[in-house]
Amino acid sequence: MLGLSVMRRLLISGGMRGLRLQQLLSEETLRHLQTSPHNTRHISTVSLWPFSSQPRDFSQPNSSWSPEMHKVYDNYNALCDTDIENGEEKRGPWRKLPSYNRSIKYATGGIHLSKLIQAKARLFTRNVKEQGATFEYVVFVNKEEKRCVCVFQAGRLLEGAPGHVHGGAIATMIDTVTGTLAGFLSGPVMTANLNIDYRNPMPLGSVVLIHSALDRIEGRKTYITCKVTSTDESKLYTESTALFVSISVGHLFGSRN
Amino acid sequence: MLGLSVMRRLLISGGMRGLRLQQLLSEETLRHLQTSPHNTRHISTVSLWPFSSQPRDFSQPNSSWSPEMHKVYDNYNALCDTDIENGEEKRGPWRKLPSYNRSIKYATGGIHLSKLIQAKARLFTRNVKEQGATFEYVVFVNKEEKRCVCVFQAGRLLEGAPGHVHGGAIATMIDTVTGTLAGFLSGPVMTANLNIDYRNPMPLGSVVLIHSALDRIEGRKTYITCKVTSTDESKLYTESTALFVSISVGHLFGSRN
Repeated sequence: MLGLSVMRRLLISGGMRGLRLQQLLSEETLRHLQTSPHNTRHISTVSLWPFSSQPRDFSQPNSSWSPEMHKVYDNYNALCDTDIENGEEKRGPWRKLPSYNRSIKYATGGIHLSKLIQAKARLFTRNVKEQGATFEYVVFVNKEEKRCVCVFQAGRLLEGAPGHVHGGAIATMIDTVTGTLAGFLSGPVMTANLNIDYRNPMPLGSVVLIHSALDRIEGRKTYITCKVTSTDESKLYTESTALFVSISVGHLFGSRN
Repeated sequence: MLGLSVMRRLLISGGMRGLRLQQLLSEETLRHLQTSPHNTRHISTVSLWPFSSQPRDFSQPNSSWSPEMHKVYDNYNALCDTDIENGEEKRGPWRKLPSYNRSIKYATGGIHLSKLIQAKARLFTRNVKEQGATFEYVVFVNKEEKRCVCVFQAGRLLEGAPGHVHGGAIATMIDTVTGTLAGFLSGPVMTANLNIDYRNPMPLGSVVLIHSALDRIEGRKTYITCKVTSTDESKLYTESTALFVSISVGHLFGSRN
């Protein structure tokens, strides 16, 4: 219901069960969460974290990735490179986002908070330890163009009809990617609507692109469009729209605002 | 994308990769798949299966179920009871559906086919072995009223925002339940559209009811409505519509029809 970037913004915007999490965030992390185009990559470096243990970033290449997954990842990763021109850093418009197995781990010290608050809970898309068995994905965001692209490899445990990916698994990735973009652009939001047209069944093992773009922002409402295609974009799997509504953290814990 | 009952109908309607699965179905199973109101419960009895190994039915009570889950299950299960009146069996309008960890296991001999065809694939909603960790659910269908109710307990591995169920996990259950009803009423179908309004965040551990009903059938299109509520129906979590399109099995394997 809430993407990872959404949670990142959510955690700095208010308290949770009386605990004001933004007080736990380092200055560097806060800058990242405010989506400055120059610090997004820093979030995954060890230097940000005041504790010895660092949350594992699940969006790193691993041995379960197919050659196609590696190739598309490498293509987008290259767009994130930093060049030095006239002694100044010059970055491309793309950023790779890290991915943890709980939203709460985006806060500084979140790995420790995670042990205190519902310690056994795990993010739905990162809840199976075996690499490649369920969701393998990486989100790249382009702030200037207000869009993002997710590279997604669908594992064998996501079956619906024999040999094919469950519609709910595809909906899960659409919610995740559109929610990430909405949170990146609008701060703390909650999914209010998902409207998904399924065009073609997706075989297990497929590597696909999930393209997500801002349609418009109207007051508290952020409208996002999303298409899932083959990596060469010749085949369309789904077309969808998503609506997110800006919220306070209190909304999650009982308040209506 | 395809519910379990959908797959059941799909498997008897045509071949798959050249294998005509209906040839593998027993007469009893075929009758079940034709949704006779008097044999649905027989599907889960051992006598139906010509092989020694019986697929495990995941919709049985287990130790992970909360008292609330047990209570709602018992209520609906009682509506499935058979009475003997004047020496004749008289059944209530409700039927409990079995639930396996692969769609293909609904075919006679499916447990063996499952070892031959993508043996390591698992149904998305039944892919975690630990009881209670992800999706605990049972679907009850009322053929006369063309509706079904699913009792669903959301486990700790379905997290989105901290302490709450991921919107994708809720979408997964909506696809599963509406797809089951559509397949029960219309035969082999594929999800064409899911349109979900999220009204309230759902805490991890919640037990909820997923109410699904036929709206209308127009040619190849089956329209289903769905609401997710608390077990006393006082709280609304989501409202949604789903559209399913009747297909041949060939559609899954490349044909457009």
